[in-house]
Order: sequence, then C-alpha cells, then structure tokens
Amino acid sequence: MNKSVLFRQIKQKRSFLCIGLDTEMEKLPKHLLSEGDPVFSFNKAIIDATAQYAVAYKPNTAFYEVQGSKGWESLEKTIKYLKINYPQIFIIADAKRGDIGNTSVNYARAFFDHLDADALTVAPYMGFDSVSPFLDFDEKWVILLALTSNAGSQDFQYNCQTSGKRLFEEVLSKAKDWATSEQLMFVVGATHPEEIAAIRQLVPDYFLLVPGVGAQGGSLEAVAENGLNDECGLLVNSSRGILYASSQIDFAERAAEEARKLQAQMEKVLLQKALL
Amino acid sequence: MNKSVLFRQIKQKRSFLCIGLDTEMEKLPKHLLSEGDPVFSFNKAIIDATAQYAVAYKPNTAFYEVQGSKGWESLEKTIKYLKINYPQIFIIADAKRGDIGNTSVNYARAFFDHLDADALTVAPYMGFDSVSPFLDFDEKWVILLALTSNAGSQDFQYNCQTSGKRLFEEVLSKAKDWATSEQLMFVVGATHPEEIAAIRQLVPDYFLLVPGVGAQGGSLEAVAENGLNDECGLLVNSSRGILYASSQIDFAERAAEEARKLQAQMEKVLLQKALL
Repeated sequence: MNKSVLFRQIKQKRSFLCIGLDTEMEKLPKHLLSEGDPVFSFNKAIIDATAQYAVAYKPNTAFYEVQGSKGWESLEKTIKYLKINYPQIFIIADAKRGDIGNTSVNYARAFFDHLDADALTVAPYMGFDSVSPFLDFDEKWVILLALTSNAGSQDFQYNCQTSGKRLFEEVLSKAKDWATSEQLMFVVGATHPEEIAAIRQLVPDYFLLVPGVGAQGGSLEAVAENGLNDECGLLVNSSRGILYASSQIDFAERAAEEARKLQAQMEKVLLQKALL
Repeated sequence: MNKSVLFRQIKQKRSFLCIGLDTEMEKLPKHLLSEGDPVFSFNKAIIDATAQYAVAYKPNTAFYEVQGSKGWESLEKTIKYLKINYPQIFIIADAKRGDIGNTSVNYARAFFDHLDADALTVAPYMGFDSVSPFLDFDEKWVILLALTSNAGSQDFQYNCQTSGKRLFEEVLSKAKDWATSEQLMFVVGATHPEEIAAIRQLVPDYFLLVPGVGAQGGSLEAVAENGLNDECGLLVNSSRGILYASSQIDFAERAAEEARKLQAQMEKVLLQKALL
C-alpha cells in the first residue's frame, strides 16, 4: 500500500485508528477457550466488529510467540483473514526486529513475503545495514523506533547525544536519508506529547505510528494537535482499551464501542484541521 | 545454567565455541530437501557431528521465521533435541527482542518457558523496563547488544555519546547496574578487536558473546588476547564457516572438521592463559 492510498482510507473511514492485536490467552473471554484456535477466533471477532472504525491492525509478535509455532499459526491466519476480507486495511507486524544485513534479509522475507504484512516495526540500534534490507520491497514499509512510549525511553533515546542531538533525534535525522516518507514511518509514543511537535518539524512528511494512548496514559488530542500534517501523518494505536473492554460474551460489541469512540474523536480533530 | 557450570563445560571441552544455527533452506545439501523437515534434519546432523567441539548453539530466529509457523516448529524441535541429547549445552536464542515491559514479559515466556532456551539476545534501545522482564527467570540469561559486528554499528553505537561515553559504552555501564555477570552477557563483535580490551576493563566479570569471526573477518586470536578473563568470559560464534563447509553428502563431517579446527585454536589460547 502506498501513502496516498493510506490517506484515502483515512478520509473514507474518518479515522486514523490502528488497533493493536495484543491477544493474550489469559485475557480471552472464557467461552472462546474451547475453540480450536481461541486466539484466532478472538481476533476474527474483534476485526469484524471494529474494521469499520480502523485503518490499520497491528499484531505484536510477542503475544503469538508465547504459544510458539501454534501462536505463529494464529498470526498467519489472522493476517490472511485480514488480507482476504479487508484488503484495504494496513497491516503492521509489530516485531521490532533488526539484525546484521544477511539476517535482516530473512526477517524481511518472513514478514513481507511469507506473512504478507504491509509494514514492520524495526529497531534502529544496529544502524543502516540492519534496516536497509527491509527497504528493498515495493509498497512495504519500515516503521523505525524513534521515541518509544515506555519509561525506559529515557535511558538511551533521551540521554545519549551526538552534536547536541538526542539519540532519537539522530535516528530521525539519519533515517530520513535512508528512505522517503513513501517507505518509512517512525514510532513516537503518545506519552511524549511535548516532543511530537518538534519531531513533526524534523520529519514533516513522514507518518508517525503513535502507541501509548489509553492504558499508557497518552492523550489523543495532544497527539493530534502536535502531530497531524496535511496527509494526516498519524496512525494512533490502541490495544488493551479496545480488546479487553469486556471479558464476557459481549466482548466484540464492547470493543466496537471503544473503537467507535476513538474514531469519533479522530473525526473531530480531522475536521478541525480541515482534512475531511 | 549458571556461570560456574558454563566455565566447567568450557574447561572440559577445551573450547568456548558457539555454533550459530543460521540454517537457510537455500544452502542445504540437496539430498536433505526430500525430508519432512529438512531444516531440523540438517540441524540434527550438524549438532551430532559438532557437539564435542562446542559449548553453545545459537539458532537465529530470522532463519526459522522465514518459513513461518513451520520454521518455528523446526526451531522448537532443534532446541528440544539439544535439551534431551546434550543437556550440558548452552542454548542461545538469537532473537534480538525488546519491547515495552508487559510485551517483553511475553517474549521472555516465549523463549525461556516455551522454547526453554538458556539465553536470549536483547536489543537495548528501549531501555531498562524493556530488558528487566527477561531478568526475572532463574538461571536464564540476557545477552544484551552492545557493539555489534556490522558496519552499521558506527551509526549510533559509536557516534552517539553521553558525558563522553559512546552509546555502546553507556549501554555497558547502565546494564551493569541492572544485572550481575550471573545473568547478563554482552554481544561484542569480533570486527572491533581494538575495543574488546577496553570493554573487558568496563565489564571484567561478564561473558561476551562474540560473533564476526570467520565470514565477517574477525580474528579469534585478537579476540582471545583482548577478551579472555579468568573464567574464560568469551563465547565465540561461528555460523556459516561451519554450517556450509560443504553442500554435499559430507556436510556434517566437513562441519565437524571446521569446528574441530576452531576448538584446537581455542584450546591453544586457553592453555596460553593458563585456564586449562
């Protein structure tokens, strides 16, 4: 998927919501546990209930790998289900991979060829040659960690500097030379609203994937105020607040309600910025 | 496995060799391709041929994930085979994971509970709370990326500084406060021999996992000269040089020959340092 198609989806759905499929066996409604693949059954129900409010889904591989090869099967089935039933949805594999070049080639094939995700989150620590193999795929995206939403983002991302730039700013600056905004996005946590405006200056055209709204305490309004650009430029993620709105038989309807609330807030800020 | 058991294995085998199971379908001997699980068949043959020369095996997840859930099955079978047949071998899942805390908990369960690896490589970019969940497991190890063997290690690991310390030095300094040398090791590429002596000063008691010998051009002698401590303190990895020594029917014997050559070199430097 290219950037203009993504922006068209955002305008059609009046939403820049990404739903994080962080599906944990322990949190599933009890009545699903007797199914052959409870994780996939849950994802399917969540997707069907919320797809009208979301432009993207983001399964995080940790929640699948915890079940080993069986979990990877659930992941494969989930992405296939999305591809077949919702071909306009943008699929992000949140895997935070990154390794030396010939190894990253294999990660790229795993996520872009085998799984057929549209985008992969990638960790920048190992530098250019660990990222570049992911950029060799047409209409596939790298979403590079810049400033993450957790407390540990202080440890290195904030505190290390080069020529007065903090590490996450240096990652943004360097990575701009690696790929255009047609292939590269950045992860910026909603828990740093004060930084999002500055980051928007540094990378005006690039989409930002923003986790941390909801359970982690970030504010959607503050993110939108500081982060929207003239092609939206934001994908705001919510996971637990939607997935686990109810642990009862009504889990999918309650998830849809939460997704609809976020969509309504997003529509409001998109209208305010005259993007609709 | 604890550190003293690891050192005992090193002394018994007169080797600190780690064999990287970077098993690529395209590089397998043709006669294995008709097997039900050629990757596992290859790994089993390599392990049986080389286990007398190696103290550790290190499957890199990229080479398994490229086959999706089927690849994860090969990985599960490989680790199970090692655990059952070679219980004294140290198993490193080279996965370079790292995510926010509640997500890293799931990666820790995936690799330490489900797969039952002894150690996991972890990327430090997201800071303390992304690493700490991996430290909550008894006799399981975090191997934190410090200075990697690839050219891209220059981009951030070298060039970003805080109070005069380069990023990889800051990672070493901070991480020393997170865990002792009984739970934590560091990845330091053999392609930086000039740095290994300085790193040994910074973290005198910690094991270093050293990739980059062989195909990537690092020298075992230089690594040993600068990196050995009084409990050895080194695991030196070789992957392609051993795995693909031959692509014919004799691949396992040729792999054993290459492993034995490295073991002999290691025995020599261990004797020189009076560690045997």
